[in-house]
Amino acid sequence: MMKGSMSVLVNRQILLNSRPQGEPKPEDFRLVETKAPVLGEGQVLCRTIYLSLDPYMRGRMGSAKNYAKPVEIGGVMEGRTLGEVIHSNHQDFAETDLVLGPGGWQEYFSLPGQALRRVNPEWKPISTSLGVLGMPGVTAYTGLLNIGKPQQGETVVVAAASGAVGSVVGQIAKIKGARAVGIAGSTDKCQYVTDELGFDACINHKGANFSEQVEAACPEGIDVYFENVAGMVFETVLPFFNNFARIPVCGTIAIANATELPSGPNQIHMLLRQILTKRLNFKGFIVSDFSDQEEEALTTMAGWIRKGKLRYREDFVDGLEQAPVALIGLLKGANFGKLVVRVSDDPTRSS
Amino acid sequence: MMKGSMSVLVNRQILLNSRPQGEPKPEDFRLVETKAPVLGEGQVLCRTIYLSLDPYMRGRMGSAKNYAKPVEIGGVMEGRTLGEVIHSNHQDFAETDLVLGPGGWQEYFSLPGQALRRVNPEWKPISTSLGVLGMPGVTAYTGLLNIGKPQQGETVVVAAASGAVGSVVGQIAKIKGARAVGIAGSTDKCQYVTDELGFDACINHKGANFSEQVEAACPEGIDVYFENVAGMVFETVLPFFNNFARIPVCGTIAIANATELPSGPNQIHMLLRQILTKRLNFKGFIVSDFSDQEEEALTTMAGWIRKGKLRYREDFVDGLEQAPVALIGLLKGANFGKLVVRVSDDPTRSS
Repeated sequence: MMKGSMSVLVNRQILLNSRPQGEPKPEDFRLVETKAPVLGEGQVLCRTIYLSLDPYMRGRMGSAKNYAKPVEIGGVMEGRTLGEVIHSNHQDFAETDLVLGPGGWQEYFSLPGQALRRVNPEWKPISTSLGVLGMPGVTAYTGLLNIGKPQQGETVVVAAASGAVGSVVGQIAKIKGARAVGIAGSTDKCQYVTDELGFDACINHKGANFSEQVEAACPEGIDVYFENVAGMVFETVLPFFNNFARIPVCGTIAIANATELPSGPNQIHMLLRQILTKRLNFKGFIVSDFSDQEEEALTTMAGWIRKGKLRYREDFVDGLEQAPVALIGLLKGANFGKLVVRVSDDPTRSS
Repeated sequence: MMKGSMSVLVNRQILLNSRPQGEPKPEDFRLVETKAPVLGEGQVLCRTIYLSLDPYMRGRMGSAKNYAKPVEIGGVMEGRTLGEVIHSNHQDFAETDLVLGPGGWQEYFSLPGQALRRVNPEWKPISTSLGVLGMPGVTAYTGLLNIGKPQQGETVVVAAASGAVGSVVGQIAKIKGARAVGIAGSTDKCQYVTDELGFDACINHKGANFSEQVEAACPEGIDVYFENVAGMVFETVLPFFNNFARIPVCGTIAIANATELPSGPNQIHMLLRQILTKRLNFKGFIVSDFSDQEEEALTTMAGWIRKGKLRYREDFVDGLEQAPVALIGLLKGANFGKLVVRVSDDPTRSS
């Protein structure tokens, strides 16, 4: 465990170098070396162990007004991190504590104590606190149960079904007695989704006859479509929505890199017509809208994991410098499971 | 009051002659003379006094699957009617009773007793039972309060603001302490909406700088947009939606006559992105989804009318044969107020 004097710490950071046009490229990021930050009153300095990579990061790289501010050009890329406290000016935290916070893409981060949350050491591996027992898991849990409200025997469809959010959505749907139909981008992923995660079906959206396969997998239509991709997948599933279907909207990764609106025809009014005639309910959300339910969600999901009812898969890359290429891959569906950068050693694994 | 023997009654009907391509034309309708129907067990024969004309009728003329079946070619055009009972085979109804039912576009209709509802004679003029105290009023009341949920000080926007539904939406918004901003298709209508109905503002969507005027009328953005038109108006108001805005969707009249999707760009994914980032809630509904609230809605609105808090305007045309041209005009915004066909004399007026 690194415990050197703070004054000698070199902090590698990845900055936003330029706003991407379309797909981000490696040149849109820049690796720099700086000194680790000097601690102010009430602040805590941490060594980054894990950095979470998530689809929302593409939005922060652009300049568009959003639910959060964009990262500034030259600013450290934002991201949730799991770190070990190496120095604390805050009474609630001490050296070697494991904490979560918005530390960003860097090897050391300092944050005010109130921005940190202690990692529950019973929930091992601790990296899950960035995935199934973290923001993605809580996103799936709160969006599905508050907006999707799957009922016994209904059909729930989710894309990116082998991913951090989609995998949890389908498994909770099953726990609630619904049918779960996944959509994923390869036969390997689809096999994992059905064989390992227990979905009733999973369809490869790159395969032939995608629409026919959706129809075949949903013989009684779609009651809940958990929207985390948009794009072609959304257009394909839309005709199969049942009356009174619920559509929680938490992501649009398929259009994240779009530089202009797709060509016509303009289907926006057709969608309004569908909303009316089928009495659809679309509701957007981000995980913080349900922050009061976070503890309940985490406790419940931790229990499901212990009982083997909720499974997950992590996809690690090693070294902070790999983060840009890994995020670029994530936006193309190249990862398989929750994508996490191992920035430095996990002390709970080395023991 | 006509009380002739049933056997001599000639019943004029308007049939659907052909499915319209784009805007309905007079040739899409056909006037025929038949004998008044013979009454079966439990049925009630009525003379049509008023026929309600409403935007949803355009949908029934097409072949598209919808929340209700299309009218068949050669079938009587559907419509809600207020009639006087002239013969009853049902114990709950007697001659001269005034009743409401789905009688269609004809001078006499017979329906099973359970399809009829007695008109509350205290709510005069009785024609309001097809408008503010009927389906359009209940649509406004239930959609606004169940889905829109306007809060004190919020901004509620509704189009077709001088119409049967829009006029009620804005006035209830005011009663609930919200700001009401209307959109209508002429300066006369806008003046009526602000001066007579008490909306805070009303914008002519045919006027110059429509978007700028929406922005000026909604300096704090839009919290509830009651969607009953779609089309250009929807595209114009969308950028001004606040976070967590609610959008009850009950009509898409602006695209009712569309024969193909409008040209691109395709904004459907931009809309999903807006739903996500602003956490919008779109929910389609039709009035029957809230049928358990109908009595409460009617009683409450009747009280508001008595107290002068809820005003309405009726737009009468005389004679069944005028119905086709009147409906064609309605779809173009030519009417001003709730459109009703006076098919025969109203006994409560002639007294």
